[in-house]
Amino acid sequence: MSDQTSSTISSAPPPVPSGPRPKITNRGRAAAPTANSNMDSSDIPEYEYFVAPGPRGYPPLTEFLDVWEVDMKHHHEDTNRTSHKTHLYNLDSLVVRRGQEFEVNIKFNRPYKPDEDKFAVEFVIGSSPEYSKGTYMPVFAVKERQTAWAGRITETSENTVTMAVTPDPGCIVGKYHMYVAIVTPYGIRRTKREKSRDLYILFNPWAADDDVFLNDESERQECVMNEMGIIYHGSYDDIAERTWNFGQFNVGILDACLYILDRSQMPITSRGDVVKVVRQASAMLNSRDDDGVLVGNWSGDYTYGVAPTSWTGSTDILLSYQNTRSPVCYAQCWVYAAVFNTFLRCLGIPARVVTNYFSAHDNNGNLKTDIILDETGRIDRGRTKDSIWNYHCWNECYMARKDLPAGFGGWQVVDSTPQETSDGMYRCGPASVNAIKHGQMCYPYDAPFVFAEVNSDVVFYMRGKEGTMEPVKVNRSHVGRAVYTKTPGELTRKDITDQYKFPEDSTEERTVLEKAVAFGCTREESDPLPADVDLILPSVELAVGQDLELSVEFVNRSEQRRTVEAYVSGSVVYYTGVTSAEFLFTTPRVTLEPGQSEKELVDVEARRYMKHLVEQANLNFIVTGKVKETGQIVTAMKVVTLRKPELIVEVSGEPRVHEEMTATVQFTNPFSFNLKGVYVRMEGPGVMLPSFRYYSLLAPNTPLVWTEKFYPQRAGTTRIIASLDCPALRQIYGEKSITIKP
Amino acid sequence: MSDQTSSTISSAPPPVPSGPRPKITNRGRAAAPTANSNMDSSDIPEYEYFVAPGPRGYPPLTEFLDVWEVDMKHHHEDTNRTSHKTHLYNLDSLVVRRGQEFEVNIKFNRPYKPDEDKFAVEFVIGSSPEYSKGTYMPVFAVKERQTAWAGRITETSENTVTMAVTPDPGCIVGKYHMYVAIVTPYGIRRTKREKSRDLYILFNPWAADDDVFLNDESERQECVMNEMGIIYHGSYDDIAERTWNFGQFNVGILDACLYILDRSQMPITSRGDVVKVVRQASAMLNSRDDDGVLVGNWSGDYTYGVAPTSWTGSTDILLSYQNTRSPVCYAQCWVYAAVFNTFLRCLGIPARVVTNYFSAHDNNGNLKTDIILDETGRIDRGRTKDSIWNYHCWNECYMARKDLPAGFGGWQVVDSTPQETSDGMYRCGPASVNAIKHGQMCYPYDAPFVFAEVNSDVVFYMRGKEGTMEPVKVNRSHVGRAVYTKTPGELTRKDITDQYKFPEDSTEERTVLEKAVAFGCTREESDPLPADVDLILPSVELAVGQDLELSVEFVNRSEQRRTVEAYVSGSVVYYTGVTSAEFLFTTPRVTLEPGQSEKELVDVEARRYMKHLVEQANLNFIVTGKVKETGQIVTAMKVVTLRKPELIVEVSGEPRVHEEMTATVQFTNPFSFNLKGVYVRMEGPGVMLPSFRYYSLLAPNTPLVWTEKFYPQRAGTTRIIASLDCPALRQIYGEKSITIKP
Repeated sequence: MSDQTSSTISSAPPPVPSGPRPKITNRGRAAAPTANSNMDSSDIPEYEYFVAPGPRGYPPLTEFLDVWEVDMKHHHEDTNRTSHKTHLYNLDSLVVRRGQEFEVNIKFNRPYKPDEDKFAVEFVIGSSPEYSKGTYMPVFAVKERQTAWAGRITETSENTVTMAVTPDPGCIVGKYHMYVAIVTPYGIRRTKREKSRDLYILFNPWAADDDVFLNDESERQECVMNEMGIIYHGSYDDIAERTWNFGQFNVGILDACLYILDRSQMPITSRGDVVKVVRQASAMLNSRDDDGVLVGNWSGDYTYGVAPTSWTGSTDILLSYQNTRSPVCYAQCWVYAAVFNTFLRCLGIPARVVTNYFSAHDNNGNLKTDIILDETGRIDRGRTKDSIWNYHCWNECYMARKDLPAGFGGWQVVDSTPQETSDGMYRCGPASVNAIKHGQMCYPYDAPFVFAEVNSDVVFYMRGKEGTMEPVKVNRSHVGRAVYTKTPGELTRKDITDQYKFPEDSTEERTVLEKAVAFGCTREESDPLPADVDLILPSVELAVGQDLELSVEFVNRSEQRRTVEAYVSGSVVYYTGVTSAEFLFTTPRVTLEPGQSEKELVDVEARRYMKHLVEQANLNFIVTGKVKETGQIVTAMKVVTLRKPELIVEVSGEPRVHEEMTATVQFTNPFSFNLKGVYVRMEGPGVMLPSFRYYSLLAPNTPLVWTEKFYPQRAGTTRIIASLDCPALRQIYGEKSITIKP
Repeated sequence: MSDQTSSTISSAPPPVPSGPRPKITNRGRAAAPTANSNMDSSDIPEYEYFVAPGPRGYPPLTEFLDVWEVDMKHHHEDTNRTSHKTHLYNLDSLVVRRGQEFEVNIKFNRPYKPDEDKFAVEFVIGSSPEYSKGTYMPVFAVKERQTAWAGRITETSENTVTMAVTPDPGCIVGKYHMYVAIVTPYGIRRTKREKSRDLYILFNPWAADDDVFLNDESERQECVMNEMGIIYHGSYDDIAERTWNFGQFNVGILDACLYILDRSQMPITSRGDVVKVVRQASAMLNSRDDDGVLVGNWSGDYTYGVAPTSWTGSTDILLSYQNTRSPVCYAQCWVYAAVFNTFLRCLGIPARVVTNYFSAHDNNGNLKTDIILDETGRIDRGRTKDSIWNYHCWNECYMARKDLPAGFGGWQVVDSTPQETSDGMYRCGPASVNAIKHGQMCYPYDAPFVFAEVNSDVVFYMRGKEGTMEPVKVNRSHVGRAVYTKTPGELTRKDITDQYKFPEDSTEERTVLEKAVAFGCTREESDPLPADVDLILPSVELAVGQDLELSVEFVNRSEQRRTVEAYVSGSVVYYTGVTSAEFLFTTPRVTLEPGQSEKELVDVEARRYMKHLVEQANLNFIVTGKVKETGQIVTAMKVVTLRKPELIVEVSGEPRVHEEMTATVQFTNPFSFNLKGVYVRMEGPGVMLPSFRYYSLLAPNTPLVWTEKFYPQRAGTTRIIASLDCPALRQIYGEKSITIKP
């Protein structure tokens, strides 16, 4: 079908050459690659001439002012450290915060003459530094007021000049290098690159012009400066707590945090924007998509890593990620939140870990958690796929949100636990807490997802034979029952539920829910009449291995006789609400006279649940049933967190900085079986780096004692934190408060 | 340091077992995996009993109504096809649009008795279908008005019932399977799964309740039904156009588009949400991050694939992606936009390709494109890293944006060309065009990025000796000079610039720019006085291989003498504005008396630029200079797109459906050198599938003639589109209009 003349040669297309394809470059598309690593840097030349070389080469620039010594004033006693609140960083470099003045001393070969000599201190970050990109900032000593990167000479003494520099309050955060450049009529002569003139510039919650400005000293002390955290877990009516060592000032942590941004290939020029930094980090803290910091695992099998329940702090995790350049195994939500918190505080972003009790896990901004019952009122486990986490931890961080209209700054939710993909990646936030409270779901990022976590309805559907579902009960107050965080400066918990929601049944609450629906959230509109029979499950305290007599109370509030055919189910559940195994099932039938109530007692034997126990040892009791006379559905749920044996931490020695002390962890196996593969971990904020012991076997009724020396690094009240964890028994924590004298 | 009793065995932790790590599952974290493929499906059981088996097993359900035959009424003449405007899909299955009624015929073993018999048609999509997730929808014939998935019987005739079904206007878009279920007192009996009962449900711009509703028939005919597109390229003052075959109705294209969503693992339950679908697709159309459809390549070396300039339509690209399951090589912006457009129109989302002339490529919502001059006024190419694309193509698609406050629905920008990562991935949009126009940058997605593409200022900086930069000229009108798209129903271009921006220098424009700055965009505030000398470069028409005398006009508007020291630079540039090679450089010095103007003539010889030509053969002339008397900077830029030799397409034969016709492509090598590795492509919307010829060599002045038979599939006016492409000469297009009679 092709006509050819003699000098047109038609043939099959050439074979595609084998071997690897050529690397696709940015040639033709962009003028330069994007600088996306804080470790890359290009040297600024030592000599830069303005003039052409003469017959004897370039004129010597050494005849002008010569730099002999630069002192970055980064030592512990230097005011740069204390005035910038960076004295706790365990780092042999200058660490300062942006938007605030710091000083360096420059010693010349002769006294500085302001009218003749001209010099600049230059700050450089990343490869291809550029003034217009904010990656190359020359600072001169000038008299007039400057807007960005101001410089002034505060003191001259003999050959030494003290230069004070104020980095722009919106400047890039990360590791810079400082040069001193002498400007002569013939050219510029610079100091050579030397590690001692590296410096770190961080976010500054103390600077009014910084987007992370937080105008409350006690909040700042807690959310930036405190290395010790308390994380709330357990269940809503039986709240448990554990101590965590954020360790944001430990050796290597600041570099490890910057490594996370480098690993994400985040462009250097975006790193002054706190919104972008926290969003990027929420993606990078989990390993999904991007080989980030922590591998999530909720399976119960942690053979190839550390059980999520075993960690006592963030230090090991962050250092391991940087050293191995591989994701660290394993994490669940509180580990993600705690390590993310370290990252945020370390970079100077005010941050706290919060816990939401009965957290709905949903997607698509669907405001329903569906529980499917069959026609008899029994839960259809095959069809019930949504789950409500007993609790879920995330982070809040504080910022101005200049990218949104006024009113949505302040605390922002960020969450790095891989629940659902946000916009194609596993990450979440920053979502303005105030926007969530007011149902303003249209502002980035992920407000609908967080809104559903605290506002979903639990909808019980009865499934008809033909596959249709009828909503039979809607519980609008179960989810998001309470949100807690640690009180600044204290060891108590603070209820911040009212920052997320208006009071139940208030006019404001209704308005907010209507607004959410207008923005496309689907919600169960029907409101089935509540049954006139109440079902009550009491709060229960139960230690691992104990039997229990569960009392299920039926209350007839009507003026007729009522018969309830009930299903009582007991399951071992993960903290995510997912059922591991059902160990108890009974079907009591209860008849109640008008106004009468009756208690049905159900025996729960330890031998039935013990073999199924997972993780955090939660039992979940669900009672559902149908009222024979009215067809109405009654339901009740109760999560029981089993009490664990104690882990005792004792401390001895003189509690004084740099003095030797000892900490002892003690534990006795209370069971009649061997505990195998036991890890014990111990650390203390500001006093002890993390370490662990492994015991392959701990026989019944046998004590375990581990003593460790430590030398407190600084004064103040802190804690020694310990954990014990083995496949048969997880989440055993102990701690001891100590106050170190200076 | 550890104390142990006899029955506590402490040892090193167990070695980590070698071999692959266990796959991390969702066990413990979620109750069920997310359904994210439209190809996965689970069979619904044929029999579902409500009763327990009796002594002789289950009661036979066959004694009740029995389904003999189901007719999906998907043939060309069926009204389902025409009323749903899906008659053009080349597919042997029913294709309908949501929110609109369609009919199926069900033939039973006996006449249907409304009072006794009960049946449902059930629609199922993806694995784990669930009523509450919208993935399992049983539809009964009922009399009362239904809100979602309504069903009614429109006709009964002997044993056959015609059932009419209206899918919910917000339902999931994709490939469903339909079952007929007979509901008996003992249980349900269903038809077996069979390919003939598969059906596709698409978005519906004709349905008022669908988010993609577009209330304009000529727009719908263009942006959903038209397979032929015109894409504008070239330069602002010399606009070129080419025809493209979107081919959204070709065999296999609809399945290939659904495959893209499957490949992205987009949850099935999100696929009814047009905002999520287009955002996901904007990420998946390029291969970055996610092994998506098209590999971008701007390098000029396309050895391992097809040159971006060579494609004539989307069909080959989409089919190849699905067949090889690998990204297709290669694309540049118009290829991304064209293939994305096919995807959108194919799924029923109104979409068009638009071209923005002088498109700023920036990141971080920085509203500046920086050009750095040295102290003499000459461009510092090493430091000038931003680029302005001569043109950039993206897509607009039409939707309601329920996720945003009122006023931001309508046309939305989506862009799949990998320019900058949006929120961590290479994708862009949907960004409301109206939000861009009004500077409402706070609404998702990527409004700041698109805003910068049309609104950036070009800032000329003069770099001082000490590294600081001083803005010396700001051009606020160069970028985003015009935005064009094809006029609905016509072959002309439509100027839609006013949908993106208020008029230059209007009050509204100033307000919008202030708002953008308030949302955190940085903009050059200073406004250096314009020089009183103007520099003018004329428009030029130039064919490849021709010499040119470029006239640079200097106009002195002042009342003093002016001397300009100018730099005239000629470069071969990519369409991205990136310089490939400078082939011309002169430094005229011009002295002008008050009010005088003078033309400086510069010889541009073909032999100098020919050896450097890349791609689309653009020459870029930049003149910069400094006025000696005032120190002011003058600049002028002009992009010249070289005229190409002609590619002639001729058509013969009777232009009637299914009649044989022939198309002939002719080309003569006008150069004095051999053209090597020549690809010629040809196709025509609705008349000819794509094919190509390869000519390894075409000698000087030698004609190439290729004749191809074709059989028009449908009536109407269309075009045969052809391209010729070889490394030495790219982007040669030809076309021929034909009108096919029925």
